[in-house]
Amino acid sequence: MTELNQTGRSGVDSEPDRPAQPGAFPTDEPGKSEPQPGEGSVDFPVSVVLPAGGTGERTGLQTPKQFCTFLGRPLISYTIQAFERVSWIQRVVVVVAKENMDLMADIVWRFQHRRVRVVAGGSTRHRSISSGVLALGEEEEEEEEGQGRPAGRRPEVIIVHDAVRPFVEEDFLREIAVAAKEHGCTDSDFEFGTECLHLALQYCGTKAKLIPGPPTLWKVTYKRDLAAAESIVKESLSRSACVVTGASAAAIELADALQKAVGPLDMELHVVPDLVGGASSRCLLEHWNFIQVSVGDPRLSEVEALLTELQAAERAPLHPPVLIWVCVRSVSDRPSAVGAAEATAVAELAASAASRWNILLYGIQLRRSQEAEHWQRSVLKVAKIASALIHERSAALVGQIMQA
Amino acid sequence: MTELNQTGRSGVDSEPDRPAQPGAFPTDEPGKSEPQPGEGSVDFPVSVVLPAGGTGERTGLQTPKQFCTFLGRPLISYTIQAFERVSWIQRVVVVVAKENMDLMADIVWRFQHRRVRVVAGGSTRHRSISSGVLALGEEEEEEEEGQGRPAGRRPEVIIVHDAVRPFVEEDFLREIAVAAKEHGCTDSDFEFGTECLHLALQYCGTKAKLIPGPPTLWKVTYKRDLAAAESIVKESLSRSACVVTGASAAAIELADALQKAVGPLDMELHVVPDLVGGASSRCLLEHWNFIQVSVGDPRLSEVEALLTELQAAERAPLHPPVLIWVCVRSVSDRPSAVGAAEATAVAELAASAASRWNILLYGIQLRRSQEAEHWQRSVLKVAKIASALIHERSAALVGQIMQA
Repeated sequence: MTELNQTGRSGVDSEPDRPAQPGAFPTDEPGKSEPQPGEGSVDFPVSVVLPAGGTGERTGLQTPKQFCTFLGRPLISYTIQAFERVSWIQRVVVVVAKENMDLMADIVWRFQHRRVRVVAGGSTRHRSISSGVLALGEEEEEEEEGQGRPAGRRPEVIIVHDAVRPFVEEDFLREIAVAAKEHGCTDSDFEFGTECLHLALQYCGTKAKLIPGPPTLWKVTYKRDLAAAESIVKESLSRSACVVTGASAAAIELADALQKAVGPLDMELHVVPDLVGGASSRCLLEHWNFIQVSVGDPRLSEVEALLTELQAAERAPLHPPVLIWVCVRSVSDRPSAVGAAEATAVAELAASAASRWNILLYGIQLRRSQEAEHWQRSVLKVAKIASALIHERSAALVGQIMQA
Repeated sequence: MTELNQTGRSGVDSEPDRPAQPGAFPTDEPGKSEPQPGEGSVDFPVSVVLPAGGTGERTGLQTPKQFCTFLGRPLISYTIQAFERVSWIQRVVVVVAKENMDLMADIVWRFQHRRVRVVAGGSTRHRSISSGVLALGEEEEEEEEGQGRPAGRRPEVIIVHDAVRPFVEEDFLREIAVAAKEHGCTDSDFEFGTECLHLALQYCGTKAKLIPGPPTLWKVTYKRDLAAAESIVKESLSRSACVVTGASAAAIELADALQKAVGPLDMELHVVPDLVGGASSRCLLEHWNFIQVSVGDPRLSEVEALLTELQAAERAPLHPPVLIWVCVRSVSDRPSAVGAAEATAVAELAASAASRWNILLYGIQLRRSQEAEHWQRSVLKVAKIASALIHERSAALVGQIMQA
């Protein structure tokens, strides 16, 4: 067995950095890793223990920081997601204080985490880590008993990771897992010890290798760190959007103009006619933001259809997807009672999409103009408004129709 | 002379903490301090040197971090403002690299900093601090020559403060300044040295006292710290708003209902009939957010009047004030072309207020309802939308009229 220390170089406090502790966990599920060329593959079973029993005093908040919420989701769920995204991670064991077992189970259910097991921790961090590792062992025994497989398969790697370091990347985990396997019981790379490294030495007779972590691995400690984490998530969610145009040439033209206009706003747009079929349907899994462009005779049914497809893709539990209806009116359209009725219909649809499906629907309306300069200005305004709505993901503004 | 070290306990990296270095700076301006009961007064001249020559490599941004912008203003301007807010601080000398002199002069001009002098720094941080302190000395000599006052007045306190620690509070500065004066050449409190403490010892023959700083004093180092700083500023700007009702009983009633509704949204509303006269006009200086409630026959002229008053108060250069026009329509009002013309007028007024005065104008429209439950829901929605607009301060959404 090997103990690896994930050092967040940018750790915001002086606490010793937390370890990635490999231990004994065999599994019969094959690793689903698809290693990139030039990267080490992970073809052995790896699981994760997330000690999450902290009290979060330093955030200045009443809630323990791992349960603090940003963008509608608790921090611990972001950390779990970071591991669930990695195909070769088999299990994630979250260790929480007894009094938070129900809360944690509810989080697992609400955000549809599938590879997670929740166990009660001990009175110290070390006991909690031990509980997590034991739970993985029990699971193994249960599986073996249930399926009659031979016992005694050799343990591989368990990563112990701070629950309040949500931004852990697959590349770094791969580096850790491979190093853990390769360096097990070599003593050449021991650089310095932390509490956990000492523990590993004392109880496991193992040696350790220090792997410096990226700055993104930093630990959420203070209230301001939650704000920084929210900002990082918002930024990563708002980098791109998928524009659905239908077959209309005017809609495609507007989408192309928007594509150019959002460049300086640090956003990329992918324009597709619809979300049906291979490449297009991948958009549903690759994007968190969708823009439906309607020109001519805009109908709410187009938005309803897109909502249904988004909902079917089942991504909403993790982050609220944004859907913006960009609606081009011809100049002759009367801004009459029809507009007001439609505004009410959009508001009602948006309220329902937000509460039932966690999808944020907004509208942007613009008038077709023959005057090139005026039209350019409108397009630029649509780009700015859409970018702001996508970046802010404001629940309070769902259902509003902005004017561009 | 005394050297004090402002230790940001929550410093995000392992760099030695930066000093508050008092030195020799006499001034003939009396301290304007208004100490609170129980707090030490500062009745001696204090000035500040802000070394701001860093290259900001670790933010991952091209711009040096002190010039990185959030909410439309560079970090260095927030730090300067933190000192300018303190009445007993006489001068702030900002030391920047030669190539940034023009940029810094432009920032001082744009954000109307009045107690600031910009000087070019040396090749190291220590040389830059020295340049800053010398500039204060020169200023003193110039003043003496110009005004024929006797030379040789004893130096008092100079605080040297990291330009990238924007959140420094008056209480802490008072503690530092008083301690600097009291502990000058005592050696009882030297706890540990940093580069600057050693410098002070070596060249000034002075002793030092370590004063632990609050967590808010943390240093902006990484890109995520800029996001955290923005979030802190947004939170502090969005804690309260001033509601202007006019004489209308219905408007006052709505304002009172809003006051109750924003409580759970962590916001306080202060309701006033207008901004004319003693107590009410203080609102212009105490708040960053204003809500004009119009009931009955809403006129844009009410908003224009408030805009003029806001502009006259000259606060906008520091932060963009938010002005929300909450407009109650009677049920019989036709949502006709009048509405569209008005929407255009609001959009144009908002565009002009934003570009000319840095004031962010938004509208919220609701319909008067006889049905209590419906009305309650609308009021709650106004509260939520207003709170979101105030919190986000989005430039892209100015001039929009939201429906509640």
